[in-house]
Amino acid sequence: MIRSVITLVFFIATITNILGQDSIKLKSQVRKTIDELKDFVALPNDALNPEDIDNNIIWLRNKFNARGFNTSILETEGLPLFFAALPMDDVKPTILFYMHFDGQSVDASKWNQKNPYVLELMSNKEGQWQKESFDALDTDINYDWRLFGRSTSDDKGPIVMFLNTIDLLKENGVTLPFNVKVILDSEEEKSSAPLPKAVKTYRELLEADFLVINDGPVHASGRPTVVYGCRGITTLSLTAFGPIHPQHSGHYGNYAPNPGFILSKLLASFKDDAGRVIIPGYYDGIVLDDDTQTILKSVPDNDTEIRERLQFNSADKVGAFYQESLQYPSLNIRGLGSGWVGAEARTIVPATATAELDLRLVPESDGNRLKKLVKDFIRDQGFYITDTVPTKEERLKHEKVIMVTEGSVTDAFRTDLSDHYGNHIVNTLKDTFDQDVVQIRIMGGTVPIAPFVNELQIPAFLVPLVNPDNNQHSPNENLKIGQIAYGIQAFYTLLCTPMD
Amino acid sequence: MIRSVITLVFFIATITNILGQDSIKLKSQVRKTIDELKDFVALPNDALNPEDIDNNIIWLRNKFNARGFNTSILETEGLPLFFAALPMDDVKPTILFYMHFDGQSVDASKWNQKNPYVLELMSNKEGQWQKESFDALDTDINYDWRLFGRSTSDDKGPIVMFLNTIDLLKENGVTLPFNVKVILDSEEEKSSAPLPKAVKTYRELLEADFLVINDGPVHASGRPTVVYGCRGITTLSLTAFGPIHPQHSGHYGNYAPNPGFILSKLLASFKDDAGRVIIPGYYDGIVLDDDTQTILKSVPDNDTEIRERLQFNSADKVGAFYQESLQYPSLNIRGLGSGWVGAEARTIVPATATAELDLRLVPESDGNRLKKLVKDFIRDQGFYITDTVPTKEERLKHEKVIMVTEGSVTDAFRTDLSDHYGNHIVNTLKDTFDQDVVQIRIMGGTVPIAPFVNELQIPAFLVPLVNPDNNQHSPNENLKIGQIAYGIQAFYTLLCTPMD
Repeated sequence: MIRSVITLVFFIATITNILGQDSIKLKSQVRKTIDELKDFVALPNDALNPEDIDNNIIWLRNKFNARGFNTSILETEGLPLFFAALPMDDVKPTILFYMHFDGQSVDASKWNQKNPYVLELMSNKEGQWQKESFDALDTDINYDWRLFGRSTSDDKGPIVMFLNTIDLLKENGVTLPFNVKVILDSEEEKSSAPLPKAVKTYRELLEADFLVINDGPVHASGRPTVVYGCRGITTLSLTAFGPIHPQHSGHYGNYAPNPGFILSKLLASFKDDAGRVIIPGYYDGIVLDDDTQTILKSVPDNDTEIRERLQFNSADKVGAFYQESLQYPSLNIRGLGSGWVGAEARTIVPATATAELDLRLVPESDGNRLKKLVKDFIRDQGFYITDTVPTKEERLKHEKVIMVTEGSVTDAFRTDLSDHYGNHIVNTLKDTFDQDVVQIRIMGGTVPIAPFVNELQIPAFLVPLVNPDNNQHSPNENLKIGQIAYGIQAFYTLLCTPMD
Repeated sequence: MIRSVITLVFFIATITNILGQDSIKLKSQVRKTIDELKDFVALPNDALNPEDIDNNIIWLRNKFNARGFNTSILETEGLPLFFAALPMDDVKPTILFYMHFDGQSVDASKWNQKNPYVLELMSNKEGQWQKESFDALDTDINYDWRLFGRSTSDDKGPIVMFLNTIDLLKENGVTLPFNVKVILDSEEEKSSAPLPKAVKTYRELLEADFLVINDGPVHASGRPTVVYGCRGITTLSLTAFGPIHPQHSGHYGNYAPNPGFILSKLLASFKDDAGRVIIPGYYDGIVLDDDTQTILKSVPDNDTEIRERLQFNSADKVGAFYQESLQYPSLNIRGLGSGWVGAEARTIVPATATAELDLRLVPESDGNRLKKLVKDFIRDQGFYITDTVPTKEERLKHEKVIMVTEGSVTDAFRTDLSDHYGNHIVNTLKDTFDQDVVQIRIMGGTVPIAPFVNELQIPAFLVPLVNPDNNQHSPNENLKIGQIAYGIQAFYTLLCTPMD
């Protein structure tokens, strides 16, 4: 044990020489990464266009092949996945990396640049973004400058960081203590529908000892971050009914039942005034013991800053603080619609009122169980529930009718905080960056990792690499150049640090 | 008195000859009315487009001038009104007719026909609407066929019926026992904001002994109908706030307050489960004595039929039956909006949720008083109320913030049921159609008549002419051809029957 610690200390010292923030080798590799990212971002990657995905796969195959990977294009029920692996050695443990190369659809009119697929380099002078020439990078790499373009952060940036790390490892003649497999998703932004079946089909190919997901931003504090799980998701759509067709609100207001009031009363019944779900059983099974609380409280969130930034006075009280709130399933009204609002408003009793709900799941809250609880709760209030538009007979027979339709379930996952591989990752990052690692027990969003965890039965960890203010999913997505250096450093040490 | 009764009986007999349902003269005039209506409907009439209104006024001026009316275009603070009068004789009492030529905005995608401004003729075979050629009218006029198009019933149809009645009266050489004035509104569907001031401005021009409003449908029984009043209207728009921008529902669902839940809880607090407003004072001042109850109960409504037709099991319980419910002010959610619903739904915590409310008023419930009651009720629940988009400071300072904006108030009016002119109208219609007249104390809808009643101090009566199932304010608005015959008969006898 002592010997391995000494080895490790020596090892890290060596890496720091190579990889110190200001080392010439690192800066030179960052520069190469920027050029390669510019090339990759130039390929549109909207999974609504299958030919976009094909073009990206051709690019990936060339780039991974050039680094000595064996590659495969894995056909699925949807668009193909891309797989790459370095030559295997049976005695080594295997890391499987998951990233994705598809991007959110683009509305160019909402971007500050003309073409979101043409990488732009920007500096920030006193809060103003200012375009810079890429030639300026020949003199020095400014880690505060940013690269703007679709998928710079989500998630092409990490893929290109990974490729360039492999170059640097080779250049330094490092023998990796792991087998390395990479699976790149092509429909992550469209919720990865083909993934569960594909993981079953390609089970043997994907077999690994642990899974590292490089997607999403590091914690808002900017510190190295490891995430042990993410919430799942399912949806419900509720529609209440008034008159069969919209009616003149003068002739029938006060008489024909108003679907907006029916729906409002129902929605209001789901939560208390503090935003906690009061549907019996909704939070069952969730236990946050002292150790868990310690981890949750160790996350350097600033709840006051969040409220200030999002401009609200009080958060919902599902948890006592932000991280605690994420340990519970949510019940969110993502959309409401009835009649018209604003300038379009008409004096009618609308025929219907609809609420779109999403339920973020945690491992304790199976999506189908929660949906059943919600439906039982509605039924207990005297509603007749149907999953199709009710017939005239149903409408006349039942005093309260509601249509409830259910979306599919993407499961949550959460790896044990004491997992051996997790500890290895945390320790490696801590030593590399000489900073405490932010450990997130479960993040609020959903990445489609549960199929891997369920099928391959391996622990999974998110190791995010990009800046938290990257405008992911929005116009003006960007990647801070300093995060490229961070990503290469993180990949480098994760790939070359042996398990103790 | 006996002499005048004999005169009247003789008079009616003559009219019946001319105007019997199947008389060739009437049918020929109905045919002419259809052609003229086709021409008039072809002019779009959305008051959001002032040029629409100008085009309609040019049409009206030509048509009224051709019938010997003196016409004026009355400028207002909004769009102009149209006025017409036959040459005056000081010894005769004066009827002022009110109709309107603007129409509800059109969403053509929701209509069965391509262009709601192109009149279509339809027959109904076993419940299926079937397009007919207008040439088919050359052989026979089928009173069950219908004309589809915006404003066929609301309210261009009655204007064209009126013009054609004048033709028929002239053709028959009838000397009218009344002076005749006509005021045509151009912003009725946009709540006639300029009218109160305009009525003051043009007080002398508009002076009359009584006012007849030809708008809205006859009673559902199809019987001749006289309405003594109508509810007024005002509006409120409520917007609740979540995060300043929509947030990822994974990252902030359970934490950032959801505006849909805030709004739902508020709306739910306004009414009990039976649909009665529970805001203190909302129904104050309304007394329905025995005589009133007798009139209300004499209306041949069929509440079961209404529920069957509109396909709901139970009506709101504001009144014990339909007519009684209309004696009270309403509180209606005409629109709800937050985020997106349906295929567009996104997994966000929306930034806002809005409810559009309309409040139908009765003479006992002043609109400003009711709006204040609603706002006080909201404030009593701990809300900070603003009438503009709240600032960051307001959002951070107050736990519950709501933006409330108020629409203008159109007052209700109600003429005494024993009024002399009212009796004259009822008796004339009863004799003409040999049917009991349905007398409605107050109708649910709003026509902007209160300014006339208040300023000119004259009794006002609605004499509706169109079919009750005309889809007024909705797609597929239509006018039954039989109602054109009815309208011409009604106008004819009202114009030529002297007061006793």
